[in-house]
Amino acid sequence: MKSRSIIRVRYAETDRMGFVYHSNFFLYFEIGRADYFREAGFTYRQLEEEQVYMPVTECSCRFLRPAFYDDELEVFTELEMISRLKLKFSYEVFRSGTRLAEGFTVHVPTTPGGKPCRIPARYLERISNQR
Amino acid sequence: MKSRSIIRVRYAETDRMGFVYHSNFFLYFEIGRADYFREAGFTYRQLEEEQVYMPVTECSCRFLRPAFYDDELEVFTELEMISRLKLKFSYEVFRSGTRLAEGFTVHVPTTPGGKPCRIPARYLERISNQR
Amino acid sequence: MKSRSIIRVRYAETDRMGFVYHSNFFLYFEIGRADYFREAGFTYRQLEEEQVYMPVTECSCRFLRPAFYDDELEVFTELEMISRLKLKFSYEVFRSGTRLAEGFTVHVPTTPGGKPCRIPARYLERISNQR
Amino acid sequence: MKSRSIIRVRYAETDRMGFVYHSNFFLYFEIGRADYFREAGFTYRQLEEEQVYMPVTECSCRFLRPAFYDDELEVFTELEMISRLKLKFSYEVFRSGTRLAEGFTVHVPTTPGGKPCRIPARYLERISNQR
Repeated sequence: MKSRSIIRVRYAETDRMGFVYHSNFFLYFEIGRADYFREAGFTYRQLEEEQVYMPVTECSCRFLRPAFYDDELEVFTELEMISRLKLKFSYEVFRSGTRLAEGFTVHVPTTPGGKPCRIPARYLERISNQR
Repeated sequence: MKSRSIIRVRYAETDRMGFVYHSNFFLYFEIGRADYFREAGFTYRQLEEEQVYMPVTECSCRFLRPAFYDDELEVFTELEMISRLKLKFSYEVFRSGTRLAEGFTVHVPTTPGGKPCRIPARYLERISNQR
Repeated sequence: MKSRSIIRVRYAETDRMGFVYHSNFFLYFEIGRADYFREAGFTYRQLEEEQVYMPVTECSCRFLRPAFYDDELEVFTELEMISRLKLKFSYEVFRSGTRLAEGFTVHVPTTPGGKPCRIPARYLERISNQR
Repeated sequence: MKSRSIIRVRYAETDRMGFVYHSNFFLYFEIGRADYFREAGFTYRQLEEEQVYMPVTECSCRFLRPAFYDDELEVFTELEMISRLKLKFSYEVFRSGTRLAEGFTVHVPTTPGGKPCRIPARYLERISNQR
């Protein structure tokens, strides 16, 4: 299942080329990821409250067409892979049906102290059902 | 005493007007403040390691002329006021002698839990000497 | 009239204190301003397409309480003053009825080349009606 | 040849995990790229003044260890590939000799209007010599 997020481009996110500065797409991905969890029945914030962090260990994006100020973007987020120790999300960004960018992020669940850990079973279950 | 910081404008800090997006000047002020402490003989990071945080309770900036990508900016930082429970820094930003912006930030020292606290005496002394 | 915007705090907007980094409130103000124009019947983007820019010449914010990751914030935006050559917007940020911050921005309409100019009459009218 | 940039982590770049938020590494890469050009004898700003833009068409980063507030980071930038229509830079980020992250960006030279174009010969020569 893919979750769908709607994001309006902020002025601060553009650069002097007139485009959305490339690294801001990773903020859009973050919103997509948060919405994915929300649709699975919990929030990433709750996960952190249970001492499970999900730092990004890898991220990547291909930019096909620029996004502009005030554009309404659609972000589709999919859980591409999940194992005990790793998650991989993939993302697609569209404007009015035109694909602008696609990318992925990899996450390793850790304790607040930075040690790899497992996602609590009830969250894992919800994420897997969502998939 | 005023401390002096040199900052080169990043592409990501510009917006589609071609100017530095206004809120980024507060990031330049943050660098000015960090350098002010550094010249006083310690780092803001050390202060936090001693459980003293300095959240911003007020900030303000007037923009006189735009800053552009790759500009080399000079930030002058001055401790305008210090009391047991409050600090006020003022800042001026120049490019080649031309004043671009001026502003201030007010800070209240707190514990990590958010309760107002005092700055440890040895830091206060260094800051006051620096002044 | 006040316009109302709903904003969810992004992870990228927090800092290691766990709070929303102060300068990000100016991005929330920008969203409030854009929504204010939208409710008046046009977009800031349209204004720029007609060669009218509204750079910020002054901005200020007081922070009363911290905002946190994933908070749903309400931003109320009001046009405090408008003259031929200047606009002043004021903003209030709330979370579940608790006031977190309040501030203002001042804008001077300019041509893309940076010369002060007037806001076209039909936009001015809509803004004034909205008020 | 690798160019070397020194970057101090800003408070605004950290997130509530206490780490540098992942997408900010692409801002560090941008600084690395700008310094690479500078060492080759020109600035990216000059290139844009000659109507040659270099939007990012792909970017990627692997994060090995977190970076923290006030860390002094070293970024090494290398031109991995250059052809008439594409450049690829690779980057490594270190703190005191420990590798924190590595990544790459791909760029396609375009006109301000967004059409693919060639890098002017005298710039291409300098970049190639630098390599």
